[in-house]
Amino acid sequence: MSPNQAFQRALMPDAQSSKAAIHEFIALAHAVDVAAFIERLEPVQALQHLRSLDLAKKTAVFAYLDLSSQVAFSNLLPHDELASVASLMASDKQVDLFNQLEPAKQQQLLQDLGEEQRNDIRRLSAYAEKTAGALMCCEYVTLAANLRAKEAIAQLRQEAPEKETIYRSYIIDSDRKLIGALRLHTLILAADDKPIMALMETDPVKVGLNDSQEAVAHVINRYDLTAVPVVDENDRLVGIVTHDDAADAMQQETTEDFHKTGTVEPLMQSVMKASMRLLYKKRIVWLALLIFGNLISGAGLALFEETILAYVALVFFLPLLIDSSGNAGSQSATLMVRAMATGDVVLSDWRKLILRELAIALALGLTMAALVFPVGLMRGGTEIATVVALTMILVVMVGSIVGLSLPFLLHKLKLDPATASGPLVTTIADAVGVIVYFSIATALLNI
Amino acid sequence: MSPNQAFQRALMPDAQSSKAAIHEFIALAHAVDVAAFIERLEPVQALQHLRSLDLAKKTAVFAYLDLSSQVAFSNLLPHDELASVASLMASDKQVDLFNQLEPAKQQQLLQDLGEEQRNDIRRLSAYAEKTAGALMCCEYVTLAANLRAKEAIAQLRQEAPEKETIYRSYIIDSDRKLIGALRLHTLILAADDKPIMALMETDPVKVGLNDSQEAVAHVINRYDLTAVPVVDENDRLVGIVTHDDAADAMQQETTEDFHKTGTVEPLMQSVMKASMRLLYKKRIVWLALLIFGNLISGAGLALFEETILAYVALVFFLPLLIDSSGNAGSQSATLMVRAMATGDVVLSDWRKLILRELAIALALGLTMAALVFPVGLMRGGTEIATVVALTMILVVMVGSIVGLSLPFLLHKLKLDPATASGPLVTTIADAVGVIVYFSIATALLNI
Repeated sequence: MSPNQAFQRALMPDAQSSKAAIHEFIALAHAVDVAAFIERLEPVQALQHLRSLDLAKKTAVFAYLDLSSQVAFSNLLPHDELASVASLMASDKQVDLFNQLEPAKQQQLLQDLGEEQRNDIRRLSAYAEKTAGALMCCEYVTLAANLRAKEAIAQLRQEAPEKETIYRSYIIDSDRKLIGALRLHTLILAADDKPIMALMETDPVKVGLNDSQEAVAHVINRYDLTAVPVVDENDRLVGIVTHDDAADAMQQETTEDFHKTGTVEPLMQSVMKASMRLLYKKRIVWLALLIFGNLISGAGLALFEETILAYVALVFFLPLLIDSSGNAGSQSATLMVRAMATGDVVLSDWRKLILRELAIALALGLTMAALVFPVGLMRGGTEIATVVALTMILVVMVGSIVGLSLPFLLHKLKLDPATASGPLVTTIADAVGVIVYFSIATALLNI
Repeated sequence: MSPNQAFQRALMPDAQSSKAAIHEFIALAHAVDVAAFIERLEPVQALQHLRSLDLAKKTAVFAYLDLSSQVAFSNLLPHDELASVASLMASDKQVDLFNQLEPAKQQQLLQDLGEEQRNDIRRLSAYAEKTAGALMCCEYVTLAANLRAKEAIAQLRQEAPEKETIYRSYIIDSDRKLIGALRLHTLILAADDKPIMALMETDPVKVGLNDSQEAVAHVINRYDLTAVPVVDENDRLVGIVTHDDAADAMQQETTEDFHKTGTVEPLMQSVMKASMRLLYKKRIVWLALLIFGNLISGAGLALFEETILAYVALVFFLPLLIDSSGNAGSQSATLMVRAMATGDVVLSDWRKLILRELAIALALGLTMAALVFPVGLMRGGTEIATVVALTMILVVMVGSIVGLSLPFLLHKLKLDPATASGPLVTTIADAVGVIVYFSIATALLNI
């Protein structure tokens, strides 16, 4: 099987496939592929296929559906069937679904679930979105500190069927305080009577309940973990975040950053499935805001009406100069936004970076001035060429500095650095560029 | 401990710290943190600290260093010490280092390593960069198909110390053909005498040697795997890629996409550590190329010199109109580039998306035209306002269509869709925008 998703789609039965082919696919394919297939069917047909699965597979497929599809099916399934599916889902997925249901459905589901799960849902649904608390699940193994290797393995064997991961167990004291983590890898290598206190990793890497999902993903990635324990303010173990959930969260964060970089408000769902109305709403906000920025450039130009009328050739270079400034600024902004997202650059690095940026921007500006000078000569003579070249150096530097600094400034103001998108930087750089260009022109051309 | 990387840096000893504090940190901190600390020291001091560690920790820390630092230390360490460190590294990390060493160093290292590792390196170093072959390691457990659970666990216990992961073992036939995968989770739950053929997952998810690292990461992410097996063209098992290596590769790919979106040639290293020369080189290419695009806009403007002189107010709206077109285009391009990277959108979706895009762009254009019409009235009267509003509708539509289509076109031409950056889209949209604007003006204003 190829990993290519297009190919995976091609493997799926389509509307023309025989009933037998569809049944074979649904029975044999991985739950995530079945979920992708079901999402492409009409609701009635989809529900039929979903309900035809045995409970374990039904749950696995259901858990892989988009949250919006899960909600839709929740409203179509009989309440006891929904409860039996939900009760088998990992607690983080349970809560994600629960939070999206209508109040009446929520009450029904709570009633249908056992007490332990009811309490877990109540507790987990209270955590803010995009935090470790919202991302964590409760299906992990805790071990008492006084066990020996053999006893620990016995306990793992007993609890494994219900746990999301048993590859790391957590050792807690009587107060649920986290005192160690134990890899299954280490455990199965150990002699039977070895105390787990001697095997465990003390002071394991952990995250706090209110840490952002981005920070959690960074920790899992940095320390190459399969899961990270989550502790409350008293250092008590309250959950774990697994590497696959963290990877999903990271992908979502990255997509948001991408969208912001293109001045699209984060979509939070598939572009393919998003409605036109939603896409319009997510795009118009910034487009409209940037109009006002651009009107400043226009107002700037109006100030120099006489200069324009005297040397209309200056206008021919306007798109070139303001775009070059914006392009250089976009480059710096993109480099910084990404470096901040990966943790490569932090707030205090600005001072170090700004001097280097000035030097790089000067070199870029000089190169570009050298490239446009001959064009200026051809089109407008020595004077125009000089104005264009000088302006080029200055606006590339201004654009670069704006692009480099804006993400830092936004971060300092507790806003997302990714908001320092190319278009925003370009708009600011344009307004400055217009003023710089015609000021130089007015001065040098003696108007 | 907080997951915040800034905070992690703050935890590190600095130049003023006492020798005891530094030694305590190096002894107790996680290898990745020690590596980050060592990279901030002067080479002589760094080498001293590195060599003071015991072999296991030295290897762990070394493996976490940037590749460029690894190469630098390789040239400073005695060759036998380098060999003992290298021999303990996972084979994928070994090969990454090996590929960067100078030929003489490579020969020495091969001589110093055992035959098995020498052969692994020779074999692995032949695979193209950024493929499954280059990403995979050889430290996995294979089981013969005729084993029972107890025998399999015994074999795992024996081999675990040398393996990167034992959480999934792979069942192969006498020809090394992959016939199944077995989770440790399943194995330790099973009765001792259960045949592993009855426990294993048949037809496991796998990737091909030449699949891209992006595709490998997608597969691991999609199927929530801790590792994925890699097979050659004859379906023989040749390696595994672990989830943490895939996550690193994905982060690298995403960073490249980000940089391309900002028209920066992919850096392939930390922005903080990149030299000014390198940053200049990675940025100037596109900036210079875009100049030629912008010169087309200038040439377009020159065609309409008379119109400009007759209605200079038209120039005031030039930045607004060309930027709006570019902004709308950047939005569409960003949405598509990211959706293609995550697999949300594939090539064949273009037809479906283009019609929706036209409708959305019309709505965006109408809204923006309504916003700028009053400004046009104030600044230039009804005629100018009409020209500006009409142009706005058209250029937003043109920009959006260019932005949406360019990533598809690049993909079709086997180029990276992420090259369809905001600045490239903007430059194309600008040139079209200038022609549209002044054509409408010339027609409506009867010049």
